[in-house]
Amino acid sequence: MLTDTLARADEGLATKPVWPVAWPDAIDNQSLDQLFGGARTHNHWLDRPVPQALLRRAIDLAKMGPTSANTLPMRVIFAASAEAKARLKPALAPQNVDKTMLAPVTAIVGYDLDFPDRLPKLFPHVDARAWFAGNAALIADTAYRNGSLQGGYFILALRAVGLDVGPMSGFDPAKVDAEFFVGTQVRTNFLINIGYGDTTKLFPRSPRLAFEEIAHFA
Amino acid sequence: MLTDTLARADEGLATKPVWPVAWPDAIDNQSLDQLFGGARTHNHWLDRPVPQALLRRAIDLAKMGPTSANTLPMRVIFAASAEAKARLKPALAPQNVDKTMLAPVTAIVGYDLDFPDRLPKLFPHVDARAWFAGNAALIADTAYRNGSLQGGYFILALRAVGLDVGPMSGFDPAKVDAEFFVGTQVRTNFLINIGYGDTTKLFPRSPRLAFEEIAHFA
Repeated sequence: MLTDTLARADEGLATKPVWPVAWPDAIDNQSLDQLFGGARTHNHWLDRPVPQALLRRAIDLAKMGPTSANTLPMRVIFAASAEAKARLKPALAPQNVDKTMLAPVTAIVGYDLDFPDRLPKLFPHVDARAWFAGNAALIADTAYRNGSLQGGYFILALRAVGLDVGPMSGFDPAKVDAEFFVGTQVRTNFLINIGYGDTTKLFPRSPRLAFEEIAHFA
Repeated sequence: MLTDTLARADEGLATKPVWPVAWPDAIDNQSLDQLFGGARTHNHWLDRPVPQALLRRAIDLAKMGPTSANTLPMRVIFAASAEAKARLKPALAPQNVDKTMLAPVTAIVGYDLDFPDRLPKLFPHVDARAWFAGNAALIADTAYRNGSLQGGYFILALRAVGLDVGPMSGFDPAKVDAEFFVGTQVRTNFLINIGYGDTTKLFPRSPRLAFEEIAHFA
């Protein structure tokens, strides 16, 4: 049984190095580092333009990640022009203004409360739209959870294509909604500054929780 | 200006193949496929055990992803034993019972409303705990958004180490809370069946939205 397998795996840990290990089915350590352990949140940006095609590629990767009933509620506006940045600026918390104005692109990541209207296309084998009809709480919960999951996929997809990111929650979402999503049911979730980060201006990395503080086996 | 760069990039799209492109800073296409385009949600599992060390590795990768003020609210219980699976079973929606009982491991992904208590350790340079004190709505919103972002990182980390996943929202979270998180402020977010998927039993992939249905440039 699996519990025995896990016990044996635990015994193995006592005598073999675990970190880093080259697992046969894992992607290579350099790629893992680009996505996770070596990547950093950036606040300062190199003077290096971001090709629009790379941002498209990141969206087309992120949309392949799983969502509940294939709801795909994430919506994104890439604010890259000076005009778009100026519209975004009044909504930003003071500590986020400079880094956002100087970032090559800022992604406004939202979720669409009208996602059920797409389900006849996205989940065609059952009437999934009917599950949500008239249930505003279920719609909001599903959109927020899955839109945030997709936000996680999107952050890693941006890193996967070679970009650096600086995600932010410090802004007034109602102001961003009113400026960018008026006439829709899209709600702003968070922002991501995107570019090529200036690694000379990074702070030391903040600590992380130990495995045992996050997870356990039952 | 960036807008000019973007315009040039767009012109370039008209004459050059875009998908797939080997971007110089991107991780290799095989790894991208393992994480995104080639990976599938699985409901049937091979009789192949999941080493506990791989699950630890996925947690230790996922925890490196960015969260707001380094809040790291995600908590995970790996239900692998027959006893843990039996405790989980009554909370599952009928269509999720068999695949969950047969999965080698089911991760219960939650978020901890007590995350502010860790902030003196995790975000030591300012008194971030004070930002949340007495603000239950901000705590809940931050925990849910960032716990879900981390859930996205965790799903991709599991794939990155070579595992297959089947995430699920079809269950009664109050029952899971009462069974697994009693005496804590952790709330269940979603479940992930984990193992090595049986690719012979996959359905055809559901469609995705086009780029233009998800995102645009402003």
